[in-house]
Amino acid sequence: MIKTKKIPKATITRLSMYYRQLELLEFDGYRMVSSEKLAWLCQINPAQVRKDLGYFGEFGVRGVGYDVIDLQAQIKKILSLNRDWNFGIAGMGNMGCAIFLHRDLALRGFKCVAAFDNALDRIGMPLPGGMRIRDIRELKTAIRDLNIEIGVITTPASEAQGVADLFMEGHVNAILNFAPARINAPDCCLVENMDFTITMDVLTYQLRQKIAA
Amino acid sequence: MIKTKKIPKATITRLSMYYRQLELLEFDGYRMVSSEKLAWLCQINPAQVRKDLGYFGEFGVRGVGYDVIDLQAQIKKILSLNRDWNFGIAGMGNMGCAIFLHRDLALRGFKCVAAFDNALDRIGMPLPGGMRIRDIRELKTAIRDLNIEIGVITTPASEAQGVADLFMEGHVNAILNFAPARINAPDCCLVENMDFTITMDVLTYQLRQKIAA
Repeated sequence: MIKTKKIPKATITRLSMYYRQLELLEFDGYRMVSSEKLAWLCQINPAQVRKDLGYFGEFGVRGVGYDVIDLQAQIKKILSLNRDWNFGIAGMGNMGCAIFLHRDLALRGFKCVAAFDNALDRIGMPLPGGMRIRDIRELKTAIRDLNIEIGVITTPASEAQGVADLFMEGHVNAILNFAPARINAPDCCLVENMDFTITMDVLTYQLRQKIAA
Repeated sequence: MIKTKKIPKATITRLSMYYRQLELLEFDGYRMVSSEKLAWLCQINPAQVRKDLGYFGEFGVRGVGYDVIDLQAQIKKILSLNRDWNFGIAGMGNMGCAIFLHRDLALRGFKCVAAFDNALDRIGMPLPGGMRIRDIRELKTAIRDLNIEIGVITTPASEAQGVADLFMEGHVNAILNFAPARINAPDCCLVENMDFTITMDVLTYQLRQKIAA
């Protein structure tokens, strides 16, 4: 029995981390793993691992640990990793191309089905794999025709909201935003911001605190 | 009087977000902003804005709000944004190049002073601005010579830990990791992970919950 209500987002994030570690453990030939070891690999505490997994049932055996392959399958089911997801990228500058070419996304079932830009010198440009960069004005039609479920935004800050609005008008309700700008979206649309300039600020704040200590 | 102890990391992240919104407000000609408006722009609640700023003193005027320019200056001081930080990038594939070419980092005082790789066909390659890609084996010398304070990792997953170890051996105590792999580091080293494959997992989990609801 899988309870799916009120799971903290941080738990979901950690499940995804556990999954990656379990893959590596399987690759290294491990069949079982303790919560202590899994916790150590993820740099968190073992009680947290047990609590996170506890939301979804009883997976481990006391004193023995978790079956590496079985737990992978369970997490895969919980996180819906057992299906592919289609995404589209808006903004084919350096960051857009880097995401497009990222091998790990495809390996994990995230399939880029279209890439868009508004610059005349980019529209029509071929991409590896036979795709071409589309005109951003085709976004809404493409969402429908290619069943785009996730929008990835890699435009400059000034264009992020406009592109997000286009995705939302096309009923894409999940956006991964790399632009250094906040996106206003209604509650029905999920937005995750990956603004690493903010992360740099946080890192240097902490660094200075350390130096001062 | 600025209190600097026990400030939650989430508060620091939001200060960085407020700062960006204040820049935009200034650009748009605003001189004052209420906590309600600032909160709305950042998509959080106003009480949170007041609480975050309250850690560092009294900045606003009740019923009037915050001075857009003054609050920027205060946050800049709190976050140590009033100095430049040197960083080095290890792994000059697509993601490494995208970070290297990212305009917002330089604008915010984050200066890439060196880029490294271990591939023979990349070492020595010229980069815009007159720099060349260095051999990863030069990392430790370069850290000292160029005063690298932050290490950015954009290698494949399998090489992330090795590169992190090199940064740490060179006494770089702040790492921004884009590789889809966890990095083991002692407490003296700050690590921020920007693994967007994990964020995609979280996004699709939430999306499926919404569809099912």
